[in-house]
Amino acid sequence: MIGNNIHNFAKELWPINRSITGPGVRDTLKAISKILPKLKVHSVPSQTKVFDWVVPKEWNVNEAYIITPSGDKICDFSKNNLHLVGYSIPFKGKISFEELKKHLHTIPEQKKAIPYITSYYEEKWGFCLSHDQFEKLEHGTYSIVVDTNLFNGELNYGELLIKGNSDKEIFLSTCICHPSMANNELSGISVLTFLADWLQENNNNYSYRIVFVPETIGSITYLHYNLKEIKNKVFAGFNVVCVGDNRSYSYLPSRKGNTISDLVAKHILKFTDKNFKHFSWLERGSDERQYCSPEVDLPIASILRTKYGEYPEYHTSLDDLENVVTPEGLNGGYWAIRKAIEAIEKNKVYKSNFLCEPQMGKRGLYPQLSTKKSKNESALIMNIISFCDGDNSLLKIAETLDVPIWTLYEQIEILKNHNLISQL
Amino acid sequence: MIGNNIHNFAKELWPINRSITGPGVRDTLKAISKILPKLKVHSVPSQTKVFDWVVPKEWNVNEAYIITPSGDKICDFSKNNLHLVGYSIPFKGKISFEELKKHLHTIPEQKKAIPYITSYYEEKWGFCLSHDQFEKLEHGTYSIVVDTNLFNGELNYGELLIKGNSDKEIFLSTCICHPSMANNELSGISVLTFLADWLQENNNNYSYRIVFVPETIGSITYLHYNLKEIKNKVFAGFNVVCVGDNRSYSYLPSRKGNTISDLVAKHILKFTDKNFKHFSWLERGSDERQYCSPEVDLPIASILRTKYGEYPEYHTSLDDLENVVTPEGLNGGYWAIRKAIEAIEKNKVYKSNFLCEPQMGKRGLYPQLSTKKSKNESALIMNIISFCDGDNSLLKIAETLDVPIWTLYEQIEILKNHNLISQL
Amino acid sequence: MIGNNIHNFAKELWPINRSITGPGVRDTLKAISKILPKLKVHSVPSQTKVFDWVVPKEWNVNEAYIITPSGDKICDFSKNNLHLVGYSIPFKGKISFEELKKHLHTIPEQKKAIPYITSYYEEKWGFCLSHDQFEKLEHGTYSIVVDTNLFNGELNYGELLIKGNSDKEIFLSTCICHPSMANNELSGISVLTFLADWLQENNNNYSYRIVFVPETIGSITYLHYNLKEIKNKVFAGFNVVCVGDNRSYSYLPSRKGNTISDLVAKHILKFTDKNFKHFSWLERGSDERQYCSPEVDLPIASILRTKYGEYPEYHTSLDDLENVVTPEGLNGGYWAIRKAIEAIEKNKVYKSNFLCEPQMGKRGLYPQLSTKKSKNESALIMNIISFCDGDNSLLKIAETLDVPIWTLYEQIEILKNHNLISQL
Repeated sequence: MIGNNIHNFAKELWPINRSITGPGVRDTLKAISKILPKLKVHSVPSQTKVFDWVVPKEWNVNEAYIITPSGDKICDFSKNNLHLVGYSIPFKGKISFEELKKHLHTIPEQKKAIPYITSYYEEKWGFCLSHDQFEKLEHGTYSIVVDTNLFNGELNYGELLIKGNSDKEIFLSTCICHPSMANNELSGISVLTFLADWLQENNNNYSYRIVFVPETIGSITYLHYNLKEIKNKVFAGFNVVCVGDNRSYSYLPSRKGNTISDLVAKHILKFTDKNFKHFSWLERGSDERQYCSPEVDLPIASILRTKYGEYPEYHTSLDDLENVVTPEGLNGGYWAIRKAIEAIEKNKVYKSNFLCEPQMGKRGLYPQLSTKKSKNESALIMNIISFCDGDNSLLKIAETLDVPIWTLYEQIEILKNHNLISQL
Repeated sequence: MIGNNIHNFAKELWPINRSITGPGVRDTLKAISKILPKLKVHSVPSQTKVFDWVVPKEWNVNEAYIITPSGDKICDFSKNNLHLVGYSIPFKGKISFEELKKHLHTIPEQKKAIPYITSYYEEKWGFCLSHDQFEKLEHGTYSIVVDTNLFNGELNYGELLIKGNSDKEIFLSTCICHPSMANNELSGISVLTFLADWLQENNNNYSYRIVFVPETIGSITYLHYNLKEIKNKVFAGFNVVCVGDNRSYSYLPSRKGNTISDLVAKHILKFTDKNFKHFSWLERGSDERQYCSPEVDLPIASILRTKYGEYPEYHTSLDDLENVVTPEGLNGGYWAIRKAIEAIEKNKVYKSNFLCEPQMGKRGLYPQLSTKKSKNESALIMNIISFCDGDNSLLKIAETLDVPIWTLYEQIEILKNHNLISQL
Repeated sequence: MIGNNIHNFAKELWPINRSITGPGVRDTLKAISKILPKLKVHSVPSQTKVFDWVVPKEWNVNEAYIITPSGDKICDFSKNNLHLVGYSIPFKGKISFEELKKHLHTIPEQKKAIPYITSYYEEKWGFCLSHDQFEKLEHGTYSIVVDTNLFNGELNYGELLIKGNSDKEIFLSTCICHPSMANNELSGISVLTFLADWLQENNNNYSYRIVFVPETIGSITYLHYNLKEIKNKVFAGFNVVCVGDNRSYSYLPSRKGNTISDLVAKHILKFTDKNFKHFSWLERGSDERQYCSPEVDLPIASILRTKYGEYPEYHTSLDDLENVVTPEGLNGGYWAIRKAIEAIEKNKVYKSNFLCEPQMGKRGLYPQLSTKKSKNESALIMNIISFCDGDNSLLKIAETLDVPIWTLYEQIEILKNHNLISQL
């Protein structure tokens, strides 16, 4: 089960402090490069204008913690990188508990969870901790150490181009900006790495453009530099996030909802889990926000396990690799997306080579003795032929027959090998 | 509440004997002119051929009543103009009860109601009375006085053109041919007068063509003279009838059912009363019969309160300004149509000024601190932007978001003021 | 009731041993020719290549039976032609019961039924018998006589062309290859013969091409020779099979499901039996398989009573003219298809001769006295006019009004006679 390998890889990435910029992003890309040696790591300087945005300063954390009046060290960043509000500016000093409280974040409804908080675009510092721990804090004077740097550095992202038989591209993206959380978002990084590994070994009909970007600013930056080139090449794609828990399958459409990615995603999920959750574009929240924005409009849908915002551990320290993300969960996420990619690869249009039905009996494809039941035995192959009219795609045929597209691949090979149909 | 003013105006018009021609029509138009001084009153001579029809003679009533064998005066037109069958020809004489009965109309199932009966195109005289009263009539000789004139005069209708920024027109029509009945049809006259009053004070994007016509022959006559001119200008409109009771909201489509008027009417009503009644074209019965007839095909839908034919008091003396039509009912009718007009005025197409999402945070339109909940807080404005693609109209966006269009007006202003979107 | 005549004709054809070739086919066509003297019988030599197929040898049966060890003659072809597997090759000899069993066919679940079995394209001999009889067979040596000929002869089919006012054609087909079974398929032959009899006496708008072909190889052969000619002429048609029992009505669509034949079939059946069975193209099984195959794509739908494969007596000796097919059943099948043909004949597009509604009152088509109820009395004719816009076909109007199309024929005549509408 490939899910085990993916889970092991996720564990390796777990401790790295990812954010939208900084060494954690580079360390993550370096780990991915071991599996995907052709991954190209790009760098964009801080302050670069990208559409309506500006690439932010690079953020580096040396250490961050609080010393309580009793002398205990708490909220230690080196123990859990969620303790520090993302993009905290440096601060060192002694402050009262009353003052400190303005900088502390907890989730009163989830007493054991450390929340994940960032302040990318407003200069602040802050700490996150469990509400249980917060409630034990005493009055008095606290020593604060936020030893961070914010400086004009660079924003990084990874890109891998796998050439196929056609220049037409399938676009796959995940986000590498979340620190130690598992479903959102070590799962996407790990699953996409293993999908890319499969694709780089495969003989593909289409080319694949695979990007590992910090969410929002990363995809915006990527599009700023690449949209013109990819706009007419990319005809399908998926945003790969939240693909690691084993509780549900989910689909989030592209903005227009009618791309080949959408059709395939719905088809695959319907036959993977008939109770899969069908979200609307209004419930979006990841980089499809950019990829599908007006005039960008790339054909990007999302196949997920349990979607961001839809599970209690979301954006907290409880989103871990033990209780939430599992090898089985990752395995399911990997195969759903792989089946979707395979479906797009095999979604061709065929034409019967004969007018009228061909004589299947003489080819051993139809029972020679005609009884009450003979039609049923060859119904599937006869139904496929009846739709090979140069118009229906294989996906359309599978939908019409209400069967998983993968159950047709072998029949199509038989028909092609008998010269009964031709691919257009 | 503007419904009070509308109700007072209806009370003023109540006693006038409206028919398809005659002084009652002119008196009604005169009363409307006090509020709409630019209303133009048109006159078309009797016997004028209009399409397949001929403008009928003008009808004038001096007096009409019956003297019973006991000497009582009953069915007195001066007490209730419904007593006389509309377009009754003159008659004076003594007749037996047996003979009289052929000229009397009642509704046995509604014993207290005087029915509303007309005979526009066949020469007859007759009286209407409650079945209760009819049952008390004695045998013997009755004296009949129907002192009416039918003569080659004129047919009148009112027309008001309010110029807007565009020559494109919205067409509003009501019918002025019903005598003293309230929902059908003092309500339409009164509500449309007050809508026109609002429009003549307003700075409108579109021009408004507002007509007050006798039903059927009036709209046919109007179209005979004006269809060629208005056909390419009118892109929306409503027939304003039965808008005065407070029991329900209703929608009757245009013939094709897919005009902007239809879309807006359904949208407004859905968010005004989720149980609004959706009638079919087959249940039509007012001037949409002409406006939407083949090749005329003006985009006219109807927003009504309780539709003609759908309430027990319909076309009887029970359809009054006390029990049936109320200030609240008129107020609801006025605002539903006004909101529909406003929706058409504001139903523009917008385009985002940026590729990808704009950075809302720096404009104070998005929370700076990213927590589990930050997406929800700005979901509405982000959703609007995501559909500003130069393709979706504001109505389409409201339908997609499943919110009343009027909840978007302010957000659109904010986005325009921040230069984030442009109107196409 | 024409069903009686059709049933009598079916009884006359019952004993003939029909197969895909041979004297039984010619005898059947000869019997049909008595009613349809212009029927042309075509002959195609064995071994002719038709698309992917080859016309098989002709099959003739002199006698066929089995003598049991006790000396009883069983499975006698002269008593029931189902006893012999269709296209059995000749065999004469003595064999053990164990050997014989490999050549015997029964239906264990239907102990009294002789199954109908054929082996057209593989050389075999065999007998069919009831499972009851099979279970009584003793051990020992059996004498087998299968005195048949398979030789290069001919394949026959009948074709009747009835010229109408237009060259556009309606195509009607049935299959003549089944031996003594009633619903599948004496019913189709008999009903189509009587439909053709009606059409040859009628003044038709369209031309009719009516074919009687052996199933599969016959329709393929017919298309091989005629497709080019008929492809652009045939705009509608029906495959007439299983139209003889009185248990249900059924519809099987053309491959694309949206032809005029489909629309008419569904309309007629909906108003004939609101519980009619709506099958899918995936449940096909007769010559629509060829007529609607890719690139052939003739607009052929099926109107059936109980469909092949959907009743227990299907393809057994129980499918008879006593218990399964009845005069009432055939009558219903005949009239459903006749109504469908009439609907296509009358499915014209009309245009109102006037802008706005015409004045019906002066033509006696609308009540002169306008009361609460007057609209209902003329609702049907007014609704028809309102859709005579040069765009809606009569079928579309009937669907919109949700009434059987045949209830509109008289109204259309009235409107045409008053010069209120014109046919386009």
